[in-house]
Amino acid sequence: MIYNTDDPVILSEDKRAVIAVDQTRLPAEFVHIRLETAEEIFEAVKRLRVRGAPCIGIGAAYGLAVCGLNISESCKSKEDFLNRLKATADYLCSCRPTAVNLSWALNRVYSAAEKNRLLEISQITDILFDEAVKIHREDISTCKKISELGLTLVKSGDGILTHCNAGALATSRYGTGLGPLLLGAEQGVKFHCYVDETRPLLQGARLTAWELSKAGQDVTLICDNMSSLCMKQGKINACFTGCDRVARNGDTANKIGTSAVAILAKHYGIPFYVFCPTSTIDLSCKSGEDIIIEERESDEIKSLFFSRPVAPENIKCYNPAFDVTPAELITAIVTEKGIFYPPYDFENKL
Amino acid sequence: MIYNTDDPVILSEDKRAVIAVDQTRLPAEFVHIRLETAEEIFEAVKRLRVRGAPCIGIGAAYGLAVCGLNISESCKSKEDFLNRLKATADYLCSCRPTAVNLSWALNRVYSAAEKNRLLEISQITDILFDEAVKIHREDISTCKKISELGLTLVKSGDGILTHCNAGALATSRYGTGLGPLLLGAEQGVKFHCYVDETRPLLQGARLTAWELSKAGQDVTLICDNMSSLCMKQGKINACFTGCDRVARNGDTANKIGTSAVAILAKHYGIPFYVFCPTSTIDLSCKSGEDIIIEERESDEIKSLFFSRPVAPENIKCYNPAFDVTPAELITAIVTEKGIFYPPYDFENKL
Repeated sequence: MIYNTDDPVILSEDKRAVIAVDQTRLPAEFVHIRLETAEEIFEAVKRLRVRGAPCIGIGAAYGLAVCGLNISESCKSKEDFLNRLKATADYLCSCRPTAVNLSWALNRVYSAAEKNRLLEISQITDILFDEAVKIHREDISTCKKISELGLTLVKSGDGILTHCNAGALATSRYGTGLGPLLLGAEQGVKFHCYVDETRPLLQGARLTAWELSKAGQDVTLICDNMSSLCMKQGKINACFTGCDRVARNGDTANKIGTSAVAILAKHYGIPFYVFCPTSTIDLSCKSGEDIIIEERESDEIKSLFFSRPVAPENIKCYNPAFDVTPAELITAIVTEKGIFYPPYDFENKL
Repeated sequence: MIYNTDDPVILSEDKRAVIAVDQTRLPAEFVHIRLETAEEIFEAVKRLRVRGAPCIGIGAAYGLAVCGLNISESCKSKEDFLNRLKATADYLCSCRPTAVNLSWALNRVYSAAEKNRLLEISQITDILFDEAVKIHREDISTCKKISELGLTLVKSGDGILTHCNAGALATSRYGTGLGPLLLGAEQGVKFHCYVDETRPLLQGARLTAWELSKAGQDVTLICDNMSSLCMKQGKINACFTGCDRVARNGDTANKIGTSAVAILAKHYGIPFYVFCPTSTIDLSCKSGEDIIIEERESDEIKSLFFSRPVAPENIKCYNPAFDVTPAELITAIVTEKGIFYPPYDFENKL
């Protein structure tokens, strides 16, 4: 039995639904929702109730199997069954375009049906469930392995910056980007975790801060624009993120703002590590140019629609109001006495 | 008469109060508050009802003059008057440490009293008001000049990224960093303004988006972590910010996150301009190392305490959910099959 009610998505015992943690309600409430139809699964993924690239893959795999069982009870023929299964897979796949895991998992489950099209429909539906369970099981061992490898890159006491959420909630256990920190907590390896809140939907504040603090790691929540100062102050030894799709050349799509973290890390000479199952590496993408970036609704930015609190009560925050921009990064300083260019040496110019 | 009820701070007609726009209530409401005591002025600056480095200076200057009038009516002697005036100036100065304009303006008003200590107390209180008005008047002409100079750096149609708020609300007219955009609007010079929301207190979303959109500029609100993608996509031709203190060598303290914008701009080869009155240049600071960074309360991050809406209704938002991090910025990619270092060329390694 691989199910664990802490897993963000599992299959219901009656195989009629995906049972998912509603991640939009964290950290205030830890509640499960029951998703029975393709439309319900689509909505849950679209609205980020189910989120995190590997978790979306697992949820969609179980979801397609559940839909397959329903279709098997109303289809006219095996061809009708396979056609409707394919249409359902395509529909679910259209929900979010950037993470490759969604299409990868749906393809895997659908292909298992295709490959076994000569069997009885009831046997094929069993195969759908088997394939989904296999994806789930592989994710667990993959994340464990990634977490162990990640632990070799850092040492106890290091300051680790995270962006978005790539923990157990985004996978099934441990996670990818947070895997070393969650596995480390189990092994007594403690880190100072600096958690980007990750606007607009605050996955860092709501999910990462909650997971790391529950695991016993030292957590400091910061706004996304504070990571530059934290790096400059020497608080950060490494940056850890998950990812949604890796192109053949290594270009990596991940939550908005990840590229900024990487540029800042390079500027300050801090290593920037990406963690992912190899299933996230999309050899059909030559480079990042081929990756579609999902655009979402304005209201996510304009209205702060999460009910309070937006972060766990017990975590620390670091809230510097200002930072210093070194002169060498400033093109010019414009004053009422003229435009000054580097070198500034104002004592001689004013 | 220099007063304009659109100015964020003015002196009341009876000279018994500073009348300020309560900036924490924008964009939902444009309301004035009346600040009569040093404690009320302190609270208003601390809570960012009155904010923006030059505006704090003007408000504190008027505030010290108002307090001076009160002290003059209860003091025992001229020495007592000057001592209590100095204590009030020191108290107000302690409110926020980073922006130099606060101490600069308070010093200027107090020094005017000091220099004229041989006059009657009633004459000295008149001088306090005169000096505050002078600071206000100078700010208006300074900002106009800065705005005109700024307009020479860009051309109509350019995409300009802003961080925090350095508009008329932060000064008295036009502003510093937003000055060219607001003056440009008056002259028919239109820009595509990309406005960082500026967490935690959302001065970009609440104030900059409101000011620029009211002026008729094209405004797109983004979260702070989206500027890297916007720069990469070629949407940004220049970055404009104000500042709170400039060290002798040009190192510049400004709203948290400004250094990140500058590092990103450098990475993408985009000019990054700082706008300020020369009074913001602090020759007593050798470099940014000498500038104290104010730390504020955790609750500003943990609870989203602004009442909705947090941005004007009519503005656009750009809400990409992901971005791509180029391979050359990634130290290593950790998978269950091992840790991959550049060059990635996964097609040969997987």
